[in-house]
Amino acid sequence: MKIYRYPSRDIWTDLVQRPVLEQKEISALIAEIFDEVDRNGDQALIGFNRKFDQAETETVIVAEAEIKDAENRINNDLKLAIQQAKENISKFHASQNPEIQKIETTKGVVCWRENRPVEKVGIYIPGGTAPLFSTVLMLAIPANLAGCKEIVLCTPPDKSGNINSAILYAAKLCGISKIFKTGGAQAIAAMTIGTESVPKVYKIFGPGNQFVVAAKEYAQQYGVAIDMPAGPSEVLVIADEQSIPEFCAADLLSQAEHGSDSQVVFLTTDLKVFNETIQAVEQQVKDLPRNEMASKALEKSSFVLIDSLEAAVEFSNLYAPEHLILAISELEKYIPMIKNAGSVFLGNYSCESAGDYASGTNHTLPTNAYARNYSGVSLDSFVKKITFQHLSKEGLQNLGKTIEIMAEAEGLLAHKNAVSIRLKK
Amino acid sequence: MKIYRYPSRDIWTDLVQRPVLEQKEISALIAEIFDEVDRNGDQALIGFNRKFDQAETETVIVAEAEIKDAENRINNDLKLAIQQAKENISKFHASQNPEIQKIETTKGVVCWRENRPVEKVGIYIPGGTAPLFSTVLMLAIPANLAGCKEIVLCTPPDKSGNINSAILYAAKLCGISKIFKTGGAQAIAAMTIGTESVPKVYKIFGPGNQFVVAAKEYAQQYGVAIDMPAGPSEVLVIADEQSIPEFCAADLLSQAEHGSDSQVVFLTTDLKVFNETIQAVEQQVKDLPRNEMASKALEKSSFVLIDSLEAAVEFSNLYAPEHLILAISELEKYIPMIKNAGSVFLGNYSCESAGDYASGTNHTLPTNAYARNYSGVSLDSFVKKITFQHLSKEGLQNLGKTIEIMAEAEGLLAHKNAVSIRLKK
Repeated sequence: MKIYRYPSRDIWTDLVQRPVLEQKEISALIAEIFDEVDRNGDQALIGFNRKFDQAETETVIVAEAEIKDAENRINNDLKLAIQQAKENISKFHASQNPEIQKIETTKGVVCWRENRPVEKVGIYIPGGTAPLFSTVLMLAIPANLAGCKEIVLCTPPDKSGNINSAILYAAKLCGISKIFKTGGAQAIAAMTIGTESVPKVYKIFGPGNQFVVAAKEYAQQYGVAIDMPAGPSEVLVIADEQSIPEFCAADLLSQAEHGSDSQVVFLTTDLKVFNETIQAVEQQVKDLPRNEMASKALEKSSFVLIDSLEAAVEFSNLYAPEHLILAISELEKYIPMIKNAGSVFLGNYSCESAGDYASGTNHTLPTNAYARNYSGVSLDSFVKKITFQHLSKEGLQNLGKTIEIMAEAEGLLAHKNAVSIRLKK
Repeated sequence: MKIYRYPSRDIWTDLVQRPVLEQKEISALIAEIFDEVDRNGDQALIGFNRKFDQAETETVIVAEAEIKDAENRINNDLKLAIQQAKENISKFHASQNPEIQKIETTKGVVCWRENRPVEKVGIYIPGGTAPLFSTVLMLAIPANLAGCKEIVLCTPPDKSGNINSAILYAAKLCGISKIFKTGGAQAIAAMTIGTESVPKVYKIFGPGNQFVVAAKEYAQQYGVAIDMPAGPSEVLVIADEQSIPEFCAADLLSQAEHGSDSQVVFLTTDLKVFNETIQAVEQQVKDLPRNEMASKALEKSSFVLIDSLEAAVEFSNLYAPEHLILAISELEKYIPMIKNAGSVFLGNYSCESAGDYASGTNHTLPTNAYARNYSGVSLDSFVKKITFQHLSKEGLQNLGKTIEIMAEAEGLLAHKNAVSIRLKK
């Protein structure tokens, strides 16, 4: 842990730096994988399953029977939990569909926007150390609410060639039937180019390791859109004198356990809370199964004693955290000061894991200071907002002169003529 | 012109292909320009003004006196036109700011979103054959409405080292005071990296030639966001028997005059309208000052006679046009069928130039089939939507079990513990 007591503002810019990631030069490998998938389709994916996931798979298609089996293998408590989460996520994301608002900007000139789904979307769910079925909910639910026609899900098989049951169950619950056993950069390549089995999509969502991240970047050259650029997960907690150190510690650790490259930042104005939170972190980390990862993440993490909550929020805006926990009492005062954050958790009972799983907000959020210029995933991420306009004859009469003058001043006389020819009629 | 009569659906996929662009390998040049701007700041920009724009500029900063001068140089009609356009664009974009909607997803669990401006944005306005002051309005107005604190505008100087007066006037009218004389890839580099004069920004907007487009792509490696990927401008017009051939022709030409790489597509069910529109295009193009560009664009453009309006809309969805003009009578029937388009113009009097300048909609739109997966610029492009959540003690009691079960099933026990430790208290 890096401990700072009242650091001078001059060094804040250093303090908000993310740990520098080892930038392996993997773009040549990504290009090779895309080429191989382009040439050999499903067979390439099956080969990569063998090579990268040590899995024998006859086909990349997940059969209906496998999905049914998965449902039987999930215990009832988990099913009910996933269902409650689905309900909340659905409620919150459904509220993001605005009513159409027609605006008459000039008499006879009416403009509005309508949402249309991105027709074909791809969802990538990593395998690896944690089977992230919660991410299935976070991406498939808004995709469905948006009305996306084709929703494709790719996830790597385990060594026995199977997909985690909870992932299959969550997918089924969300109405996804096109599930494929393929992971890493090759899964992204398959959804970008298309194979005999895997449909080509227009936009790809989902987290992943550095190969997946690089492949998503590469996929954009093919005209595919992606949800957002990615980096390691992070949380920043701001505490005052009434914050509860054990709670703060637990929240910091719930982020730190994600991976050794995760980062957590703790800011408080209260010396007692400062010291007790550090102690509680040291205490709690011992009992975690993912102790090693969390400890590594903590090494790069900062604990900062700061002179005011205003300063703490200012520091946070500079850091632009993916998750921001305001474990303070004067929420109304500080919420308007927040400028850059992915998702904000308010008060002593809004732990980050609530939003990670079940409160209803999306957990696909901008990391690595991208909260300065990107939003998290929402219903908006799955639609295009198309503008419409209708000018009546009167509308064009009212606006025509303005258009003609501007078009002429830009030297675009065909633009002007499109108005003039109508006004003359 | 390419003329197709009732083309079979098998060849539609070929027909909707965009002309293949000459892909010059310019990435090495872009990297050099970024390096040079990084090393030499303003001096690099001044050097590039000399080299690429044949302009001697002592400083890249546009002085207040220059802006005032510009105001005096603009005639009153143009001022009034720009003001009316500003009013309409403001009205429509202001309507895109949703009210905060707090959703109680579970008793005691409240979630909502709040907009926060992207704090620093950069606007690029090309010089070249047309001084696009209208694009200043389209980008500066929503940036201001969103509350962006720092709005930077870069545009190349003419050979005498000056900026077009209408660009300066529009910028001033929109409250932009940070204007810099720098164009091309070097302007994008300056806004990405920052120089002594040009502030570094978080998101860059605006059209440009292939160097600007490549530079915007490259800038993303620095963590900067961009409005959208870009390609040549395009329009698709769908006409029925009541459409007016001269109007259709004028609309097609107003797009074709943009550049020799523009593309226009005309679809109609009516043979008479088909023939007369082609004649009208041939007639009208002769009188255009930008005749040469428009003629080149027409060479690659398609005129399609098609058997039904349903088929025409289907074709359009496959093409995913930047601009779609529905010059037909049964609007209510066909609007819901539109799946992919940037901006849609309805009826015989909604010419594309209305939206290009003054109706209120934004003219920064997805081209090159990106209307399948991108929206045009709107107020949303200048904000992040931050999610907030507040769980009361009761809220966590209601949701806690669900979070614990899901976290445990994902093997993330620190996530579970953040709930358990609170429930125990």
